[in-house]
Amino acid sequence: MPPKKNDISFFFNPRSIAVIGASPIPGKLSYVILENLKKGGFLGAIYPVNPKYKFINEKRCYSSIAEIGSDIDIAVIALPAHVVAESLKSAGKKVKGAIIVSSGFKEMGDEGIKLEQDIKEIAEKNRIRVMGPNCLGIYDTISNVDTFFIPRDRIGRPDKGGISIISQSGSFAGTIMDELAYEGIGVARVISYGNRVDVGETDCLEFLTDDDATKVVALYIESIDDGRRFIDAASRCTRKKPVIAVKVGRRDAGVHAARSHTGAMTGRYEIYSAAFKKAGIIEVNGYEELKDACRVLNVYSLAKAKRVLIITDGGGIGVRIADACDNSGLEVTGLSEEIKKSLSSKLPPFCSVGNPIDLTGSVTDEYYITALEEGLKDGFDIAIVTVLWGPPQLSEELVDKLKGAIQRHNTPIIICSPGGKFTKKINSIFEGKGMPVFSTPESAVRAATILAS
Amino acid sequence: MPPKKNDISFFFNPRSIAVIGASPIPGKLSYVILENLKKGGFLGAIYPVNPKYKFINEKRCYSSIAEIGSDIDIAVIALPAHVVAESLKSAGKKVKGAIIVSSGFKEMGDEGIKLEQDIKEIAEKNRIRVMGPNCLGIYDTISNVDTFFIPRDRIGRPDKGGISIISQSGSFAGTIMDELAYEGIGVARVISYGNRVDVGETDCLEFLTDDDATKVVALYIESIDDGRRFIDAASRCTRKKPVIAVKVGRRDAGVHAARSHTGAMTGRYEIYSAAFKKAGIIEVNGYEELKDACRVLNVYSLAKAKRVLIITDGGGIGVRIADACDNSGLEVTGLSEEIKKSLSSKLPPFCSVGNPIDLTGSVTDEYYITALEEGLKDGFDIAIVTVLWGPPQLSEELVDKLKGAIQRHNTPIIICSPGGKFTKKINSIFEGKGMPVFSTPESAVRAATILAS
Repeated sequence: MPPKKNDISFFFNPRSIAVIGASPIPGKLSYVILENLKKGGFLGAIYPVNPKYKFINEKRCYSSIAEIGSDIDIAVIALPAHVVAESLKSAGKKVKGAIIVSSGFKEMGDEGIKLEQDIKEIAEKNRIRVMGPNCLGIYDTISNVDTFFIPRDRIGRPDKGGISIISQSGSFAGTIMDELAYEGIGVARVISYGNRVDVGETDCLEFLTDDDATKVVALYIESIDDGRRFIDAASRCTRKKPVIAVKVGRRDAGVHAARSHTGAMTGRYEIYSAAFKKAGIIEVNGYEELKDACRVLNVYSLAKAKRVLIITDGGGIGVRIADACDNSGLEVTGLSEEIKKSLSSKLPPFCSVGNPIDLTGSVTDEYYITALEEGLKDGFDIAIVTVLWGPPQLSEELVDKLKGAIQRHNTPIIICSPGGKFTKKINSIFEGKGMPVFSTPESAVRAATILAS
Repeated sequence: MPPKKNDISFFFNPRSIAVIGASPIPGKLSYVILENLKKGGFLGAIYPVNPKYKFINEKRCYSSIAEIGSDIDIAVIALPAHVVAESLKSAGKKVKGAIIVSSGFKEMGDEGIKLEQDIKEIAEKNRIRVMGPNCLGIYDTISNVDTFFIPRDRIGRPDKGGISIISQSGSFAGTIMDELAYEGIGVARVISYGNRVDVGETDCLEFLTDDDATKVVALYIESIDDGRRFIDAASRCTRKKPVIAVKVGRRDAGVHAARSHTGAMTGRYEIYSAAFKKAGIIEVNGYEELKDACRVLNVYSLAKAKRVLIITDGGGIGVRIADACDNSGLEVTGLSEEIKKSLSSKLPPFCSVGNPIDLTGSVTDEYYITALEEGLKDGFDIAIVTVLWGPPQLSEELVDKLKGAIQRHNTPIIICSPGGKFTKKINSIFEGKGMPVFSTPESAVRAATILAS
């Protein structure tokens, strides 16, 4: 099968990587990249390139790409902006793809735009696919490629998992990756494509559509290069896996002093929002929602519909969750008479048998399981189980009991557990067992809303 | 000066507390209350009352209130619902106020309503002010009263501070208190008044208005007893200190199956919202916002207006914050030409000198301080300083440098620091130094929105 026109899959399974501008000096970007390729366990060939050195950390350093005996899949270029084009030129046709991590291009104004144009021309001539410039590149748990030049003690690297992230912004990609690593949520591929001189959101989306390692795609979008192509690609992807997107930069540059331009700003944003909808993309509103979406989609598939069962041991929090569900378009419908009757016979009289089911402060671990098992018989699409840990009869064993209930049902069960020290300890037990736990009513409802999208 | 008609101040500086239904059995509510009064350091007289015991933990136990030689400021009643009225009756006029923590009243239907009515009548006859039933009562860092019957290892107790909380819901009060304790945010008084047979939100608000220990009032409202009196009291309070409120229970009971009733539900909620506005109360939307409000008002006073300066070292996060500010009605206006010029001369050329000021991944600690000092000269009302800790030249010393800047300026400076392990370590340093730090762009903007209310 001939490679597809926009195929960029070699970026995600390279046999060889050259690091152009390699340095033995700790702290330099290229040093961090070499370290991360080693630490990450990349098994292909690594070629440091820099005419200044013969060896870098006891590894042979090449004076130029020409000097390397074989073809190169990826050249990671970490050179000052004004010499990047020259380096690409000297690579000739020996390199399939380049990841240009250097900054100092379009974002710096006219001169930078010119430098970027030069890169574009040389790349097209030499048929080199280019990611960047001004990007972090790729963090990949399948190929173990890691060109993110931020040390691992500053930005954690997630384990292997099913989420892939496509982000124009490097800082956004790095920060969300760091959070996922901290929460023990795995990723497949994280891509920061920066100034998009060539490879952009749609190329990446097309690759991830057919990537078996990717179960969920998260997009951070500042702008889209080719709307029609994007919608086609995204429509194909959303038929295979959930795609979530956050659009930032809702305001036009330059209008911030002119509040009267609000109409225009909104209009522009709404075009993106309509495009997402058309393509079946789940739009989320900002960083918090994106994080909540990653957490819940890491574990659960999308729900069939919007009916939510709420179980709580604190009336006030239960009511707040019901409010937030209403506001988000979820349906907190009542229980059937049959289930009410059966719950009333199995729970003590002080429990409130409605939706929410309020088990009150006299709750025990068992009441939760009874409420969940009986309540779910009413055909709900999602359950939100809120546990306040004040009631002294509640024990850590509830964690395993809830895990058992989750395993017995296809219905996604979202745990909401807000509170301080004791609660945080329990929440880390939930997380250790792979159960996503939400620490505010609002974040639990955001997660439910994502699933009901 | 004769006591005011609705004066309930004796609940907050009692000389004596009787615990009715006191028990030596660990786990019983009354046992926990006795323990907490001791552990909390309440210095007044404590009288356990229970005819079954002569002594409880080597302390004399009284068979009835009548047996106690002196008058009692507060009787905390922890008896089964059906004997509470009898106990109040036997107290006669010896007791000023009762906190009835027992449940099994109005929330249990007709029989409970009848029991509550009995309590009301006896209390009025004996001129006893009643808090509850079905409540947690009072946690007070000034008088050291603690009738919250949840053990301290489950629900943490905040240190002394300026926030006071009035909540109908005990679970809500307990949970937010536990979170504040965990985050090191202090409180003055926390009041859970439950079924409101007598003392309600307005009595508490009136007390807190003149309470010097209370700098900020947070209200959790399910319903308001007397709208006109509430608005009058709240208007008086908001002239002296910020009052924030969350209204939960936005849906009418019974309408959840009938979506067509939405109009009526909204209308009801909007009456509350309008009342809050009229009284100068800052309305927040749910638990997350209430928490953000407590955190930021614990440290900063309300801002003069809505102009926000954004400083960041990650372009994407900066843009997201600007978006969220726009959505919340904050004004992210540009810098003056003068300040732009001065910033351009003091920062390297790769920094973007606008609003946001983007210091990029090549940032150092000093750039932040330069950007903040220069930017604030443009008369902003609030600054949001976002720090992504990936850039290797950023150090822990930035925490102290930012603290210095906060101390030099009257303008509230909100720190936003999202990320994983390294970031959380730094954030705990911020918190240890009394600086509120927000871990998502959205929560930082919520905090700014509160200040600009």
